[in-house]
Amino acid sequence: MTPSPAWTRKDLIAIEDLSREELDIIFATAESFKSTLGRSVKKLPSLRGVTVVNLFMEPSTRTRLAFEIAATRLSADVISVMGDASSLVKGETLRDTALNIQALSADMIIMRHSAAGAAKYLSEITDMPVINAGDGAHAHPTQALLDAYTLREKFGPDLTGKHVTILGDILFSRVARSNIWCLKKLGAHVTLAGPSTLVPREFENLGVRVCHDLKQALADADAVMLLRIQHERQTSTHFPSLGEYTSMFGLNKRRAAWLKPNAIIMHPGPINRGVELDSDLADSSRSVILDQVTNGIAVRMAVLYLCASTKSLSTAQ
Amino acid sequence: MTPSPAWTRKDLIAIEDLSREELDIIFATAESFKSTLGRSVKKLPSLRGVTVVNLFMEPSTRTRLAFEIAATRLSADVISVMGDASSLVKGETLRDTALNIQALSADMIIMRHSAAGAAKYLSEITDMPVINAGDGAHAHPTQALLDAYTLREKFGPDLTGKHVTILGDILFSRVARSNIWCLKKLGAHVTLAGPSTLVPREFENLGVRVCHDLKQALADADAVMLLRIQHERQTSTHFPSLGEYTSMFGLNKRRAAWLKPNAIIMHPGPINRGVELDSDLADSSRSVILDQVTNGIAVRMAVLYLCASTKSLSTAQ
Amino acid sequence: MTPSPAWTRKDLIAIEDLSREELDIIFATAESFKSTLGRSVKKLPSLRGVTVVNLFMEPSTRTRLAFEIAATRLSADVISVMGDASSLVKGETLRDTALNIQALSADMIIMRHSAAGAAKYLSEITDMPVINAGDGAHAHPTQALLDAYTLREKFGPDLTGKHVTILGDILFSRVARSNIWCLKKLGAHVTLAGPSTLVPREFENLGVRVCHDLKQALADADAVMLLRIQHERQTSTHFPSLGEYTSMFGLNKRRAAWLKPNAIIMHPGPINRGVELDSDLADSSRSVILDQVTNGIAVRMAVLYLCASTKSLSTAQ
Repeated sequence: MTPSPAWTRKDLIAIEDLSREELDIIFATAESFKSTLGRSVKKLPSLRGVTVVNLFMEPSTRTRLAFEIAATRLSADVISVMGDASSLVKGETLRDTALNIQALSADMIIMRHSAAGAAKYLSEITDMPVINAGDGAHAHPTQALLDAYTLREKFGPDLTGKHVTILGDILFSRVARSNIWCLKKLGAHVTLAGPSTLVPREFENLGVRVCHDLKQALADADAVMLLRIQHERQTSTHFPSLGEYTSMFGLNKRRAAWLKPNAIIMHPGPINRGVELDSDLADSSRSVILDQVTNGIAVRMAVLYLCASTKSLSTAQ
Repeated sequence: MTPSPAWTRKDLIAIEDLSREELDIIFATAESFKSTLGRSVKKLPSLRGVTVVNLFMEPSTRTRLAFEIAATRLSADVISVMGDASSLVKGETLRDTALNIQALSADMIIMRHSAAGAAKYLSEITDMPVINAGDGAHAHPTQALLDAYTLREKFGPDLTGKHVTILGDILFSRVARSNIWCLKKLGAHVTLAGPSTLVPREFENLGVRVCHDLKQALADADAVMLLRIQHERQTSTHFPSLGEYTSMFGLNKRRAAWLKPNAIIMHPGPINRGVELDSDLADSSRSVILDQVTNGIAVRMAVLYLCASTKSLSTAQ
Repeated sequence: MTPSPAWTRKDLIAIEDLSREELDIIFATAESFKSTLGRSVKKLPSLRGVTVVNLFMEPSTRTRLAFEIAATRLSADVISVMGDASSLVKGETLRDTALNIQALSADMIIMRHSAAGAAKYLSEITDMPVINAGDGAHAHPTQALLDAYTLREKFGPDLTGKHVTILGDILFSRVARSNIWCLKKLGAHVTLAGPSTLVPREFENLGVRVCHDLKQALADADAVMLLRIQHERQTSTHFPSLGEYTSMFGLNKRRAAWLKPNAIIMHPGPINRGVELDSDLADSSRSVILDQVTNGIAVRMAVLYLCASTKSLSTAQ
């Protein structure tokens, strides 16, 4: 496999940076990687000899694991560093951390950080490719890419005119923000739904519909993406309790009947069964939640491979 | 090396599931792997390209390390996940965790869990081979296998009629339980010894001898397996204190003289020197404690290899 | 590459053990490894099949990462064990931990430990090569080696007569201690500088100059090595506060002017910008701090490779 010559971007920071063509290159590359995830196929040698540092300064087993597996399938060596209690990080600026990782002769860095803009900043001070695995409330581009990949898998490569409803705690959600950018670039219509405290009208400035009536938000949806309720909200009286949320916006059988027959249900995980999503629905044929997980491997392999290719890290075999 | 065609089991959950023939296949496979642990031999390619997730939802450096090394020696890629503080796990059912790991396109899972039955449950909901690395008070099959392997190494492949005394905190011990099943299947006689609160008479229902008189319990033993005193016992007045245990049941030189001259001393580790076992005895020629550790690598290589072979994960070179 | 036949040492415990010839073998080996750190070169197969256990019983992301990358570049498999909360370690003597790691059929061990002498002790009870990654206030030999390597890179291979000033919290510093031994063996003059409570006169017994006047300590220096102020000092009134330290001994632009024009600034990291070192100086052309980090990979590759060669672990390709 040869990386697309049209790909020249060393970093993946946010979906808003990407052109439509770049999105298509990622999807095409991911598709060819997905076909290798079957068990009889061995690891691909593409990133043999490449050392990837997985710098997770905010805890996340799920995303870290997905990136580790994706990099490993490309034969890279992955070294994971959890930021808490790490002397690499404590009492050290992010800039020093980055310069040190580069000086350690690592080749790529995947970073999750609690501050919006951290990945961008990192990418500017280092020659290494930087992959944003989530930066504060800003962006989580690989999540949006795997979501779009899953939608394309279900509805075909052209998402023009498709309706996607994002339902839940959208206020500070980097998943929602990256998905909005991605879906709009692909021509889909986006509706944000949930209680008004979690889905303020201001989001309309992003060119999406804001809808506090769940029935209406679901009526024309081809896909509904659920988001988890952030537990830290529970300490404020400004936001609904979990119980209140479930009773008003939790997706259950009765409400799922408002969906079109072939509409699909998506969730970035981990699912809070019985809170934002009924357990039966999560396991129903409507649910593509586990497809999203598998597609996350393929999409992350694609992103690692493409960004590495710009630094001649990829051996492109 | 070719996996035995008689092995068709994708999971290792508990010794009680295994036939005598399956035990013999494990021992034979382990034996051929043990011969490769010498330093001039390189890693075996058997599990090249296989991704093993080491899911330890209860802390255990020792067993995790042994499985990591065993898998690495077979050229697998190992990703370790510690369950505490893992978002893969928190607020997520075990079933979702399992389905997610499978969807991440991992190939095998090794799990330690605090709940008895967790590994069995996991094996039923996933296609991946599942290796039980300890589930609550239920089972720790690879420990029993390495113990039996060590006994066979010392006394020959036929353990019929051999006497093994398990001494210590047996009440909730998965090591004791798995060893009882394993030793009886191999034809050995098992005696359980220790204070009556830790070794209740009810164990006789398992077809073993319960003996609260240490001298008598040691008299005919070919091997004595010591178990650690669980520290959580120390908060209850129902159980002996460490000091009381040592004075009554700690194995020291005087008591070791009650053993037959060629009887061996075993311990699953970590040793509490001076508590359940005298330090000199732990280092004496009677002790096979470090053999157990090495055999644990060979036995775990065998189990990983055999279970992988049923899913065509093993390249069987 | 072939390891030098003059190298017969299986362990690296402390600089004071090494002959001048051994130092030169390490530097020459590191030099050839450094040339491979460029990106087009793949991993070296030298330690393929070798399992290295990184046993860090004191937290350190930075040094652990450097050793992990160094071992990975030599194709070794690295398994990292953090000592805190590790059952391998808790309630177990260091001797038992070491014997267990050896019995697990690991091949080499890299250890950081809070007790001076721990690495030496380990090396005596195991056949495995043991690399000291810092033991209490005793030694941190690879840090001294990478510092000396960096000095040689800047000033040429002969450091005879060069002046090196070590400035900061020297009282319990293993970095300072190892550097003193190393620099003196290489013929350099060493000055220790800082407040008298952190740099007592007794250090003169090691054959170095102790100087509490910063201007004088910097005047003839070819290099100044800064050390971090240990935060635990801050609870004692005996030692200066961070603010007091910075005002009296922090290296800032005004004080750096006391240095010779081509004098270099070194720091083992992580830097406390604005405390012991002015931020601009850390990034100035005088600073070789990031060179130190890169050289740490080359030097650690050399040490791992050489020590492995004595046990025929290295395949010496």
